[in-house]
Amino acid sequence: MEFPSKLIESAVNEIAKLPGIGKKTALRLVLHLLREDEESSIHLAEAIINLRTQIKYCKVCHNISDEDICSICASHHRDNSLLCVVESFPDLLAIENTGQYQGLFHVLGGVISPIEGVGPNDLHLDSLVQRIAAPDSEIKEVILALSSTMEGDTTSFYITKKLKEYDIQISTIARGVPIGGELEYTDEITLGRSILGRTKYQTSE
Amino acid sequence: MEFPSKLIESAVNEIAKLPGIGKKTALRLVLHLLREDEESSIHLAEAIINLRTQIKYCKVCHNISDEDICSICASHHRDNSLLCVVESFPDLLAIENTGQYQGLFHVLGGVISPIEGVGPNDLHLDSLVQRIAAPDSEIKEVILALSSTMEGDTTSFYITKKLKEYDIQISTIARGVPIGGELEYTDEITLGRSILGRTKYQTSE
Repeated sequence: MEFPSKLIESAVNEIAKLPGIGKKTALRLVLHLLREDEESSIHLAEAIINLRTQIKYCKVCHNISDEDICSICASHHRDNSLLCVVESFPDLLAIENTGQYQGLFHVLGGVISPIEGVGPNDLHLDSLVQRIAAPDSEIKEVILALSSTMEGDTTSFYITKKLKEYDIQISTIARGVPIGGELEYTDEITLGRSILGRTKYQTSE
Repeated sequence: MEFPSKLIESAVNEIAKLPGIGKKTALRLVLHLLREDEESSIHLAEAIINLRTQIKYCKVCHNISDEDICSICASHHRDNSLLCVVESFPDLLAIENTGQYQGLFHVLGGVISPIEGVGPNDLHLDSLVQRIAAPDSEIKEVILALSSTMEGDTTSFYITKKLKEYDIQISTIARGVPIGGELEYTDEITLGRSILGRTKYQTSE
């Protein structure tokens, strides 16, 4: 596709660098921006620049944050006895958006992966141990919410070993058949785990 | 969806204002930008701002342009005897990208539509007549490439009347069954027009 305007060409090329957006879609977005007020383009551009230049990482839990301490760590309404360990910000966001968890988080920044050259020192593991070892720590339970891959399991095992000396409970999120999922179409590993990890049937009585 | 960061929330909301992009996709793009270099976000934002603030409209043909005169009007490699009238920039771009047209353009900025309150004076019709009436005009043929809607046909009719006194040929783009289109699935109006507007069968002899 050739454009009679370098400004359009440059905007299309930059937008088409985003994942899942091709040149045709990028052109559609550019034409939309040209139809709209100048302000809406400036707001969009400012939001992108502010995002990238002003974003910080929480000094406590390494969550993405606007301040030095993120809104979750700074909140007085969270359960300080629970700490959920996640790989990344999208995982944290997914758990937050369930509305079922009121504890704190710790974002590792990945999982141990010898193949990709990620060792324990590349992750926020030391600061996790420090949070639990701190004299004023209220943490009673650490919930491991890592991927159920070999790397995730290795990392969970590593964390469990590191935390053995502290008087805290360690749990992992439940694995099993998704709500609404049909047994027939559930993969064997998940179904196998859901039988091994069966829970007591609870009635309202 | 709630975000623990106002910067992320604002970027997601601004990106989700674009057509065809929802909040989930916007979040995916935001997380992509956070993973990439700071430079790529800045380039993206700059391209959007430059697009919207520096873009001009060609003083001759009203095409979107980087300069006062667009690259098509300024080119010495175009056929100055042909002038194609289109509604908008995307239509111009579509014709340009066929690679089959080497003449000039005139962008009307819409079509006459009494229902939407668009009259002849809201369009670049006077400047079209002026281009053809100019003493140094080389234009011999005007090609009308407007939508085949009632509004498009009205506009084509209006232009034809306005240009009657000038010694130029007026043509419209061919309407008919698309290349590769099957007769069985072509709508009746298109098929009817393709029979009325049949052309002489040409062999290579």
